[in-house]
Amino acid sequence: MLNEDRLFPADPGTRAIARRLYAEVRDLPIVSPHGHTDPAWFALDEAFPDPATLLVVPDHYLLRMLYSQGIPLESLGVRPRDGAAAATGPVETDPRRIWRTVAERWHLYRGTPTRLWWEYSLERVFGVTERLSAATADAIYDRIAECLAKPEFRPRALFERFDIEVLATTESPLDTLEHHKALRSSGWRGRVVTTFRPDPVVDPDTPGFLANLETLGRITGEDTLGWKGYLSALARRRRDFMACGATATDHGHPTASTADLPPDQAAALFETIVSGRASPAQAELFRGQMLTEMARMSLDDGLVMQIHAGVHRGHNDWMRRTFGPNLGDDIPVRGEFVTALKPLLDRFGNERDLTVILFTLDETVYARELAPLAGHYPVLRLGPAWWFHDSPEGMRRYREQTTETAGFYNTVGFNDDTRAFPSIPARHDVARRVDCAYLAGLVAEHRLDEDEAREVAVDLAYRLAKQAYRL
Amino acid sequence: MLNEDRLFPADPGTRAIARRLYAEVRDLPIVSPHGHTDPAWFALDEAFPDPATLLVVPDHYLLRMLYSQGIPLESLGVRPRDGAAAATGPVETDPRRIWRTVAERWHLYRGTPTRLWWEYSLERVFGVTERLSAATADAIYDRIAECLAKPEFRPRALFERFDIEVLATTESPLDTLEHHKALRSSGWRGRVVTTFRPDPVVDPDTPGFLANLETLGRITGEDTLGWKGYLSALARRRRDFMACGATATDHGHPTASTADLPPDQAAALFETIVSGRASPAQAELFRGQMLTEMARMSLDDGLVMQIHAGVHRGHNDWMRRTFGPNLGDDIPVRGEFVTALKPLLDRFGNERDLTVILFTLDETVYARELAPLAGHYPVLRLGPAWWFHDSPEGMRRYREQTTETAGFYNTVGFNDDTRAFPSIPARHDVARRVDCAYLAGLVAEHRLDEDEAREVAVDLAYRLAKQAYRL
Amino acid sequence: MLNEDRLFPADPGTRAIARRLYAEVRDLPIVSPHGHTDPAWFALDEAFPDPATLLVVPDHYLLRMLYSQGIPLESLGVRPRDGAAAATGPVETDPRRIWRTVAERWHLYRGTPTRLWWEYSLERVFGVTERLSAATADAIYDRIAECLAKPEFRPRALFERFDIEVLATTESPLDTLEHHKALRSSGWRGRVVTTFRPDPVVDPDTPGFLANLETLGRITGEDTLGWKGYLSALARRRRDFMACGATATDHGHPTASTADLPPDQAAALFETIVSGRASPAQAELFRGQMLTEMARMSLDDGLVMQIHAGVHRGHNDWMRRTFGPNLGDDIPVRGEFVTALKPLLDRFGNERDLTVILFTLDETVYARELAPLAGHYPVLRLGPAWWFHDSPEGMRRYREQTTETAGFYNTVGFNDDTRAFPSIPARHDVARRVDCAYLAGLVAEHRLDEDEAREVAVDLAYRLAKQAYRL
Repeated sequence: MLNEDRLFPADPGTRAIARRLYAEVRDLPIVSPHGHTDPAWFALDEAFPDPATLLVVPDHYLLRMLYSQGIPLESLGVRPRDGAAAATGPVETDPRRIWRTVAERWHLYRGTPTRLWWEYSLERVFGVTERLSAATADAIYDRIAECLAKPEFRPRALFERFDIEVLATTESPLDTLEHHKALRSSGWRGRVVTTFRPDPVVDPDTPGFLANLETLGRITGEDTLGWKGYLSALARRRRDFMACGATATDHGHPTASTADLPPDQAAALFETIVSGRASPAQAELFRGQMLTEMARMSLDDGLVMQIHAGVHRGHNDWMRRTFGPNLGDDIPVRGEFVTALKPLLDRFGNERDLTVILFTLDETVYARELAPLAGHYPVLRLGPAWWFHDSPEGMRRYREQTTETAGFYNTVGFNDDTRAFPSIPARHDVARRVDCAYLAGLVAEHRLDEDEAREVAVDLAYRLAKQAYRL
Repeated sequence: MLNEDRLFPADPGTRAIARRLYAEVRDLPIVSPHGHTDPAWFALDEAFPDPATLLVVPDHYLLRMLYSQGIPLESLGVRPRDGAAAATGPVETDPRRIWRTVAERWHLYRGTPTRLWWEYSLERVFGVTERLSAATADAIYDRIAECLAKPEFRPRALFERFDIEVLATTESPLDTLEHHKALRSSGWRGRVVTTFRPDPVVDPDTPGFLANLETLGRITGEDTLGWKGYLSALARRRRDFMACGATATDHGHPTASTADLPPDQAAALFETIVSGRASPAQAELFRGQMLTEMARMSLDDGLVMQIHAGVHRGHNDWMRRTFGPNLGDDIPVRGEFVTALKPLLDRFGNERDLTVILFTLDETVYARELAPLAGHYPVLRLGPAWWFHDSPEGMRRYREQTTETAGFYNTVGFNDDTRAFPSIPARHDVARRVDCAYLAGLVAEHRLDEDEAREVAVDLAYRLAKQAYRL
Repeated sequence: MLNEDRLFPADPGTRAIARRLYAEVRDLPIVSPHGHTDPAWFALDEAFPDPATLLVVPDHYLLRMLYSQGIPLESLGVRPRDGAAAATGPVETDPRRIWRTVAERWHLYRGTPTRLWWEYSLERVFGVTERLSAATADAIYDRIAECLAKPEFRPRALFERFDIEVLATTESPLDTLEHHKALRSSGWRGRVVTTFRPDPVVDPDTPGFLANLETLGRITGEDTLGWKGYLSALARRRRDFMACGATATDHGHPTASTADLPPDQAAALFETIVSGRASPAQAELFRGQMLTEMARMSLDDGLVMQIHAGVHRGHNDWMRRTFGPNLGDDIPVRGEFVTALKPLLDRFGNERDLTVILFTLDETVYARELAPLAGHYPVLRLGPAWWFHDSPEGMRRYREQTTETAGFYNTVGFNDDTRAFPSIPARHDVARRVDCAYLAGLVAEHRLDEDEAREVAVDLAYRLAKQAYRL
């Protein structure tokens, strides 16, 4: 059973404050301005197939922990890529067996946010109150399977039950947006919007980059192998995305490097890029130039920019070749923003109509670089603790290391950033509780009055995300 | 109203210990060995003009937060530089309007040290107990303005009321020291001393560097365009500063790099520097060489060295050109001390009559580099949490990350490091409270006995600063 | 007197949980899988000479703090190297005087783990309950000296009284292992095993490296100046060490760099190395190649690999020349593992029969690099907080920054890593208390149920070390 005081400070006086603050935010609607759910779920509204396919196979947090302890991915239902060299064993296709493999090793997740998210989801979404284990695996599996067969567990019903005010998905410029279009004409009143993530046509290191440019050309009717046509095609797709509700772009770059080349040099660089003969340094320069181009377009069309920087994607060569991406082998690297962002900031840093939201996986930059930058430049805001740091300790460090310099109002509330739809309420609940716990500490130490903390709690849980993302 | 328990741990048992420790230090005199107040205030002892000019316009912590939220600097009374391209709007000259702009946005400072400092200063210095807001702005403004008109709010009266035992200001070698000289012959018994900060004649990247060298030559009668005369001029100015009470030098360098070149190479490097044709690497090498030269002079004349390293000053190009320096756009960068300090330490690290105090804005070096270095080399001491980290969480991290390796006795007490004179008691009060809170935690966890914690509390609040700075 | 609640959280509710968890682990046997005690102590079982020689002179934590405060090493009984230029004073040879020098400055250790270890050892091993000070120095000295004269204070008796189940020492491939052999044939049932640490024949920057290779050749009868013979010699010595109980290797490298060269390039690199003309980059490449070679051999023979990376050893030039190594002037440097380990991980990262345990002195890599790596790769495990971070705050940061991503089960329990034999129980006690305090916090905040925390406490104190090190 979930304890009502979970994640609140142990000191009774502080806990009482946290409870009062949480009472103000627990029932606020969910604003989810950045994430990776599949719009097809809401467009088609089909039943989810089975517990393992819904909850285990797409959860790379879950998979990587089991893999790190020697469990082959195949036994968790992950299929090798077509044509990949034989992996280590047969692919498990029985969802119940996959479920048991997780349940038997549930102790591995002690102390991790995965446990917090799962336990909340199992209890609040599916009514499961026993702890997962080898002994309870089958009964819990059956209970969830039974739920999933009912209409009230279809995507739209859950969306409404979760009280989601708005949910953003993330699509590539090559996406047809068919599901978003279907959604908008469906008559369903749930608000699901897209986000423009141009990495596949902006990052020359993307596999199939040149083919992607050609596809972009076909979609837009622009000559995307020329600099001018390429920029026009991007601007055009941004407008298409805005027609599907987008209020933001997102940029997942290996570093936060930006550049601001004179137009002729930018055009020449693009020529080198499309020639396929660009060096790694030129590819990096091009990504940096494109962040500045995107900022320029954002000043025109009002889309908020998000920069998610600093991951070595696909670190495990064998796994990438055998199974493909997003299986837990993305590893953060050291970050740097002060020098990296300077070209973009020298150009647009003092604008009042542009918002650039920064995310990092290198916590050392919170207090040293990001809070001082966001506490100065009007365009900058800090995204919440991200990915590996989307956890109680991670969020606590984020607040402790950013608030004193950047305050609360240069931050943008919470992002669940997830593809695990049933876990969305759990993730927002963790964030609300951890923020209330942090605020309760400030109140208990007389660093903030409780009436002000109450206002901040609502800002962090609800208002700031809406404002920052212009939702 | 300030709560008597502010910044103390919430746990009642630990709080009781913190109260007892704080009772030992709350009324100790203030020793302020490093800061940026204006010696003219104490030399001339004129009334401060108005609340905004005293409290808002010079407070770059305050300004940068408002600027980050889109408030133009002009509306806060900051004037563009002569001849600067037109800024974004007219300069506000009505101090009451400036005051209101701050008061209306007082929520932006929730959770920041600015709030702690201001609220203490308003209540303890000016008797204001209401929270600043749009509604209270005018009444509070009037109250402060009324105070400032009275003789007991003149600089010397406040200095005495603040119980400042000694206050160090910071001057350039090009400064005439006229205010310090006037002070010393004035008969007033307040102890205000200068600090020797040679950056303008040591850092070749200072605007006007060569003209500065010539001015230094005029002041000292030395040939400052030759290496020998240049060094003699610096030694001579150090003696002049010592005659105005200086016990320390201060060096604000972009990095902690040091060098120890053979004399002929040092002389040749200086020749390149004065030729104006030095590369960035040569400028960096020269700054590093000068730190070692300064250490050598300190061994002769006994001045304590301070190194404040690791800031990208004037990061915002447009702001620097339009408004000038020190307006909140100085951004910390990653620090490195182990390799950087080696040349200086190889030369002087084992001396027992030299003290070098290190400051960083990169907290990652506390536990990894600075505490191990200071826990070994006799010359090294750790300066307190600096600038962005001069805050409750910043100070707590500093103690948690340095004490276990360097102990308390390789640290040097508190620096307020401020130009905001009325905030000095507030800043020392925060530091004393946070240190007592930290010590109370050690006592509560039986990691230190209370009689020892009491002694350490007094050391941190008073004795260590006097000893380390030889005051 | 040691307080029974030391290191437990101050909040009474959380403390009560910590007490209950600690009750489960306080009396578990000690498993010490990595350390630097002298096997001769247990082989010869002679009485320890006197309190200072046992407790002060070999404790570099103790020495460096005194040195940092201006106490010459000679006055602590440390001898200059033969032929070293004269040091600063005569070497103190009276152990009582050395003891007094420490006792008079006992306040320097306030807040450090040295105080915790010493106070536990003095009370639990020698029955001393007064605080060390100038006043108590002599009485405490006499008390310990009296103990050391008794048979129950000989090494084997203490080993048994400490309830050590297994203790690993660390030896070079050039070691004769005579003491380990003597131990094994002595009939004493204490389990003392060796660890294979090949740095002196693997790191070309070791003084006397080429002579070491020749010695290795003599010991093994292999041609160690040829690549093939060199590898065979290492494999042979590994087997010799296994015969003396070794279950692990240890690698103390300046960085975590690894390499995986084709065989012919590796052979050519070795040729350059033995020519004595290798560049620093080639030496680094060779160390990296050897980590991969060692991993390959570990897959064959089952030895667990430990990598301790990231120290600048002998930072103080004068001290290294005058007194030699290991006197407190080893300084951590910034660490990097994501790129550094990739060659080794690309080769062996997905193996299920290999264990590589990583240690760092750069805490910034815990959450950013090490936890994500260990939370993915089957071969990787995280060693405990090491050296400067083997302390209450260091251990707390380690758990807070690794658990949420890597969980508890990708960590390996505690290492005391010490040459200070009498402090071993103290160090394990600190680790057990800090882990119970951390777990109690999770329980109090309802992030973990107490029955699960109880199991984790035993795993961290006992089971994980045995499993990970295959003991």
